[in-house]
Amino acid sequence: MRLAAKSSKGTARRAPYMMMSKKRLFRKIVIVGVGLIGGSLGMAARKKRLADMIIGVGPRADELRRAVARKAVDRYETDFRKLEKAVHKADLVILATPVGQLEAVSRELAPCLSEGTVVTDVGSVKGYLVRHLEERFSPDPSNRSPFVGGHPIAGHEKSGIEAASANLFTGALCILTPTDRTSPEAFKKVQRFWEAIGVKTVSMDPDAHDRILAVVSHLPHLIAYALVNTALELQSKSGDLLSYSAGGFRDFTRVASSSPEMWRDICMANRENLLAVIEAYEKTLDRFKRLLVEGHAEGLRREFERAKTAKEKFN
Amino acid sequence: MRLAAKSSKGTARRAPYMMMSKKRLFRKIVIVGVGLIGGSLGMAARKKRLADMIIGVGPRADELRRAVARKAVDRYETDFRKLEKAVHKADLVILATPVGQLEAVSRELAPCLSEGTVVTDVGSVKGYLVRHLEERFSPDPSNRSPFVGGHPIAGHEKSGIEAASANLFTGALCILTPTDRTSPEAFKKVQRFWEAIGVKTVSMDPDAHDRILAVVSHLPHLIAYALVNTALELQSKSGDLLSYSAGGFRDFTRVASSSPEMWRDICMANRENLLAVIEAYEKTLDRFKRLLVEGHAEGLRREFERAKTAKEKFN
Repeated sequence: MRLAAKSSKGTARRAPYMMMSKKRLFRKIVIVGVGLIGGSLGMAARKKRLADMIIGVGPRADELRRAVARKAVDRYETDFRKLEKAVHKADLVILATPVGQLEAVSRELAPCLSEGTVVTDVGSVKGYLVRHLEERFSPDPSNRSPFVGGHPIAGHEKSGIEAASANLFTGALCILTPTDRTSPEAFKKVQRFWEAIGVKTVSMDPDAHDRILAVVSHLPHLIAYALVNTALELQSKSGDLLSYSAGGFRDFTRVASSSPEMWRDICMANRENLLAVIEAYEKTLDRFKRLLVEGHAEGLRREFERAKTAKEKFN
Repeated sequence: MRLAAKSSKGTARRAPYMMMSKKRLFRKIVIVGVGLIGGSLGMAARKKRLADMIIGVGPRADELRRAVARKAVDRYETDFRKLEKAVHKADLVILATPVGQLEAVSRELAPCLSEGTVVTDVGSVKGYLVRHLEERFSPDPSNRSPFVGGHPIAGHEKSGIEAASANLFTGALCILTPTDRTSPEAFKKVQRFWEAIGVKTVSMDPDAHDRILAVVSHLPHLIAYALVNTALELQSKSGDLLSYSAGGFRDFTRVASSSPEMWRDICMANRENLLAVIEAYEKTLDRFKRLLVEGHAEGLRREFERAKTAKEKFN
């Protein structure tokens, strides 16, 4: 329909687009949860003209109307009783709800799926969740599962459709976590989706993913929350601390302004790995404290130098 | 001289500038240490035409030549034996060396000062340093000291004259730390300097400054260094962690790329306050750990919510 409307005012300059549009990679994509990540994915997919139709699913009509207005989805469905119709013959269903809702959403979704529909997610934890979801979408262990775990390393301290952007994933990396139960065709389809919107993919064991993300993402967030709350406690003793907040502190408050519900769910879902890295971190902090107590300036400089060198190597 | 040269090609549009230039606030300003902060101060002061002459003092001719080229200073002196001539009849000497060099620099400087020259600094720690420097510049305890402690809350993880900018202090706050030994005229002169380059000032007891900065600046830097070093240690076990570094972690590595020497000196100079706030921080972290161990999701959410609310209030 949209194609016909466009071609009726077609010009020579539109021809390449029309040709491309005939070869759209997907007929129908469904995005469940059209917030920052889901909305940005919809916007990126529409910008790249990847699908004939993108449908948003979620509980709140006002947000989904905004998603249509922001060109993240073409249509939407808020009534979960009509989920079957919404996902009927979808090529790809992307679960982009908060991690804490993935299990409940998948329970509703699984009986509605058509043959050939592939399901993926964007959750910041994988391990047990991937095992649970691949079983949910393919209960018979002798079958391959149409579920493929995914985690795009992108985000923002703001959440919701208003913060979404077609460029959120520019230059990003998406970690895919196939297992020996994953259908190879499903994996290829999900990989093709990410690469078509310009995101590099890398494959990794779901548990390895969680061990790594505990260090580079979950611990930093926990630390930022802990720092801000420490300052709040000291503030009641030392007066108006936070109005003097300098550069370093502001970076932390920004990180600590991320969604509390989302980070509660992520931390709880990955708590064993998180506890292990907190322990490693406390050991480092103890070492720093000892250097301070002993007045060991050179030792402290060496620690700081080591961190600085790492940054120069990795950023 | 510069004024005459300018006025010889004067136009009607230049008239207001010429009038302003007759009332320049300072005849001569000397900046000792023309790096990020000293250089930015020189650039801001020249932009505002605050002084007839700004002289840079430091050990490295190449950096000072860059400071002249970047319009941070008009002239420079690298020979400390000629310090007396450089600071002769200066209105204001700004010590902008790293904190660890302030005592040594002041020892050289003190005997060279003219009557009426005011000295200030930009160090990130005050307490003992202010007491030391006000005595250094006025050994007789019955006299008021021409030294006024100052700390502009601005900075950058980069250092050196190349990172300097006339706008570094835009919107910033400068904490001044007068004591009962501070000469009121000296205080007014330093306050006038900061306000003339568009920086608000606030006065505070030097020890209160150090207690506050331990929380909002020194602890965040220490934590960032500790996080990066923890990741480096875990990396040797878990493989290439840092190439997956997400948003939160990148903010930390940026903070942890600040100058190791500078932060060594700051942490050592303020180590008692720093150790106290590390302890408070460890208590918060312990509370978070307990919530994780007990699987107390709602408690964790409440902690995160509290931090997020603080950010909304204070940034």
